[in-house]
Amino acid sequence: MEKEKIILGIDPGTRILGFGVIRLSGTKAEFVEMGVVNLKSEKDHFSALKRILSEVSAIIEKYLPDELAIEAPFYGKNAQVMLKLGRAQGMAISAALSHDIPVFEYPPRSVKMAVTGRGGASKEQVAAMVQNLLHIDSPQENLDATDALAIAMCHYFSLMSPLTHKTKKCSWSEFVKAHPEKIKK
Amino acid sequence: MEKEKIILGIDPGTRILGFGVIRLSGTKAEFVEMGVVNLKSEKDHFSALKRILSEVSAIIEKYLPDELAIEAPFYGKNAQVMLKLGRAQGMAISAALSHDIPVFEYPPRSVKMAVTGRGGASKEQVAAMVQNLLHIDSPQENLDATDALAIAMCHYFSLMSPLTHKTKKCSWSEFVKAHPEKIKK
Repeated sequence: MEKEKIILGIDPGTRILGFGVIRLSGTKAEFVEMGVVNLKSEKDHFSALKRILSEVSAIIEKYLPDELAIEAPFYGKNAQVMLKLGRAQGMAISAALSHDIPVFEYPPRSVKMAVTGRGGASKEQVAAMVQNLLHIDSPQENLDATDALAIAMCHYFSLMSPLTHKTKKCSWSEFVKAHPEKIKK
Repeated sequence: MEKEKIILGIDPGTRILGFGVIRLSGTKAEFVEMGVVNLKSEKDHFSALKRILSEVSAIIEKYLPDELAIEAPFYGKNAQVMLKLGRAQGMAISAALSHDIPVFEYPPRSVKMAVTGRGGASKEQVAAMVQNLLHIDSPQENLDATDALAIAMCHYFSLMSPLTHKTKKCSWSEFVKAHPEKIKK
């Protein structure tokens, strides 16, 4: 039996946290779970951070991922928003690191490029493509969940492509070149 | 005996982490410890984050603080720097939250204002004043350590001044007004 690997993708916003879990068997990726944690009812920033920490820890203990993938945006609305986003990501990262799970990061454009072939793809296009790639029949309407799944898929493509993996990029076009048998005609 | 409270101030940069610990007995503040953790030799961003998490957890387990105070800058060089700073702060915050320690944040100007009376004070002025306030005879030359101590002192002033505490601000001038007996003539 080929070695399995579980990948957890997290899209940790300050109002909604999305997560997606995939299982790799050899070079094949299989959908496991996706969902969201709504943080809007948390009374303040630190309550939201505490909630992220406990929810991501629970997800890690449930699905036992081998690796965590998150987004690393290079620009944002303003410094304060980026600081708070960094803290939110920090909760997910610390949950992973305290379980000795390595963390990988990808720019949002690379994630979109990886699953749709276009860095400027919309969230809806990302959602449609990632669910198609993973043969998910009952579509998930929450775009934070599908975004998180796309991050996990981006890491999967990166792992499958040793050349791009070295530079921590992920690309579906590279992946298609390397694995034409995985593409639905 | 009056109830004691231990305050941990953390200045978590991405290259150097400063920390300062003070003990409050009633309305008096006493110096306990300060120091730095050098992160420059860490091989990458996630190694540095893991180091922050383990060092801050160790500091918490050693000094058993009741509350953590950190800085919350409102602006920064660029989005990427702020994201990474937020993640670094996130490690310290998650170490505190996972020990059920509440976290308080103060803008850098409020910290400087609190200990020197001037929001635009230099790090050297902050260092001199905070060491004077805490009667530290052997001066600490590392400005990341004294900055962290200033953050802890800012939280102390905030606690002593119920009015400013409500709005999470701290001010030495307010403190002086409320506690003239604490000021060296």
